[in-house]
Amino acid sequence: MAEHLIDYERLRSFTEQIFCKIGCPLTDARTAATALLSADLRGIDSHGVARLSGYVRLWEAKRVNASPVVKIVHETPSTAVVDGDSGLGLVVAPFAMKVAIEKARAAGTGWVSVSNSNHFGIAGHHALMAVEEGMIGIAMTNASALVAPTFSVERMLGTNPVCVAIPAGNEPAFVADLATTTAANGKLEILQRKNQAAPAGWIQDKDGQPSVNPHELKGGGALLPLGGDREHGSHKGYALGAVVDIFSAVLSGANYGPWVPPFPAFVPMPSNQPGKGLGHFFGAMRIDAFRPADEFKQHMDQWIQRFRSARPAPGYEKVLIPGDPEREAETIRRKAGIPLLNAVWQDLQDLGERFDVKL
Amino acid sequence: MAEHLIDYERLRSFTEQIFCKIGCPLTDARTAATALLSADLRGIDSHGVARLSGYVRLWEAKRVNASPVVKIVHETPSTAVVDGDSGLGLVVAPFAMKVAIEKARAAGTGWVSVSNSNHFGIAGHHALMAVEEGMIGIAMTNASALVAPTFSVERMLGTNPVCVAIPAGNEPAFVADLATTTAANGKLEILQRKNQAAPAGWIQDKDGQPSVNPHELKGGGALLPLGGDREHGSHKGYALGAVVDIFSAVLSGANYGPWVPPFPAFVPMPSNQPGKGLGHFFGAMRIDAFRPADEFKQHMDQWIQRFRSARPAPGYEKVLIPGDPEREAETIRRKAGIPLLNAVWQDLQDLGERFDVKL
Repeated sequence: MAEHLIDYERLRSFTEQIFCKIGCPLTDARTAATALLSADLRGIDSHGVARLSGYVRLWEAKRVNASPVVKIVHETPSTAVVDGDSGLGLVVAPFAMKVAIEKARAAGTGWVSVSNSNHFGIAGHHALMAVEEGMIGIAMTNASALVAPTFSVERMLGTNPVCVAIPAGNEPAFVADLATTTAANGKLEILQRKNQAAPAGWIQDKDGQPSVNPHELKGGGALLPLGGDREHGSHKGYALGAVVDIFSAVLSGANYGPWVPPFPAFVPMPSNQPGKGLGHFFGAMRIDAFRPADEFKQHMDQWIQRFRSARPAPGYEKVLIPGDPEREAETIRRKAGIPLLNAVWQDLQDLGERFDVKL
Repeated sequence: MAEHLIDYERLRSFTEQIFCKIGCPLTDARTAATALLSADLRGIDSHGVARLSGYVRLWEAKRVNASPVVKIVHETPSTAVVDGDSGLGLVVAPFAMKVAIEKARAAGTGWVSVSNSNHFGIAGHHALMAVEEGMIGIAMTNASALVAPTFSVERMLGTNPVCVAIPAGNEPAFVADLATTTAANGKLEILQRKNQAAPAGWIQDKDGQPSVNPHELKGGGALLPLGGDREHGSHKGYALGAVVDIFSAVLSGANYGPWVPPFPAFVPMPSNQPGKGLGHFFGAMRIDAFRPADEFKQHMDQWIQRFRSARPAPGYEKVLIPGDPEREAETIRRKAGIPLLNAVWQDLQDLGERFDVKL
């Protein structure tokens, strides 16, 4: 499906320039471009540069402040609340994660809840900032409501992803980065483009009946929580998505549940919002706040090697460690370039023309 | 299926006396009985007094130390590692949760990883200790390997439950208490007793093929991670169970993956164990470490009320809040008594006769 292959650095520089053109200070533009492009590098095409024009439209609709004053509004030795001042989540999230890391340096762990933000790209990028400091990183965010809780026809939760990234020794980091739904919305978007049926258990129609029509969400249908239905544990996926929502928004003062601002700028804002913007939650834990880091890393290596050598089911080569597929994609794409669909390529060309930036 | 109804206090006192008889100090016996019976109160019959004789057999096999010296072996302002000295998890876990709560009082949050422990009953009981102090509580534990990761035929993880308990204002607490599998092992045990087929997506046979035979685990089969199969997100359930394993055991120095000690005393211990006992992980977060508690509680009430009033799917009365079913069970059972199957009743009678304790 890839119709263009663009060098990562070229695409990153283009994205940075576009963010500058809408008024981001250079350091913010750089932070945002790196965060956004990390999705393309890691093979999560739905959350990367394909969304750049969407972020620009949010700025045009005055839902994003390109030069926010992001600040800590409350703190204790191991916690903080950050107000994102309506900035790009791609800028606010790295700020908050840095606060979590600094808290962890002093107190062992750091936990930061964020209000008044916007979409932050992929959770994995932010969680991995802690791994670069030798810490465990946790990142989660709420998002606008596309998911129906168990027994509900109403969409009440976003796909509310969570990432836990854990450093190892000689082995690469363990990186579990997952939406709390059966399938991420990005995967459904791919089926929509191909007009292909979705697997059973991914979505329901507007009446709460199971559906395989990938366009069901436009007609009032919903994504399903991880588990799919009650018999297969959808109440667990619902509970996990709810925890992400509460940690990200009820702890910080952001909007939660059906009140979270939508990503598409043409979708009206929900009325009677109880908070500010959307919310995130970050954690950093210093390894040596628990045990000597070298001991931990040695056992993480053993953990990873043992799981990787588990006897595979017939037809499968091996058992994967969370983070393996994304790391493999990154290795390939850093060399070969980022594959872009023609529609995305054209979208970027239009942006470039409009802002006088060459891709 | 309930064949006997026993008053809660009578059953708790019996359990406490049995723990005393195997050598637990009175305060530990009380703590353990309360923790164990909380499962029966909350309707999770598989993890309650039905397991009392199992705990006694672990003590007989010298796998449980009835009078442990549980202690903190490392700490920072917001973290600690606790060594359970091979004690009952039912005693070690409340000790560790108290440490987390004290850390949170001083530093905003507290995080405690535990090694050298045993099975701790239900996660919810321990997480709710924080809610009683007005805090958010988190509890998780690893367990012996019954679950095959995605693409694996080998059992590598326990059902590794996690509980997040969040206080509200006028509404009861939000309590998400879940095994990271499609179905908890206790639910499978019920089908085994009835000799009924399991729903598709719960288990696989020894060759990694889907199965509905509830006895499959005896023949080398496995429970499946939440999601069931790759297409429905089993890699997410696998990742969540893995995070529980790593936080509980690799951070603390307990056994992980296939090396976790089994609950049945007749099952041999895995060889070449890399750590001590099994592991838990606990967290406590003070609400006012993030925002004023009354503001938070007001918004939690609004969150709960909004979700509870979501439009239900046809055939369902209403959308539930995590914790609703268990709280309802507790209300009924505190009044009406704890229902026991005849086999469990007989097991308790035998225990009582042996230790000269009257039920």
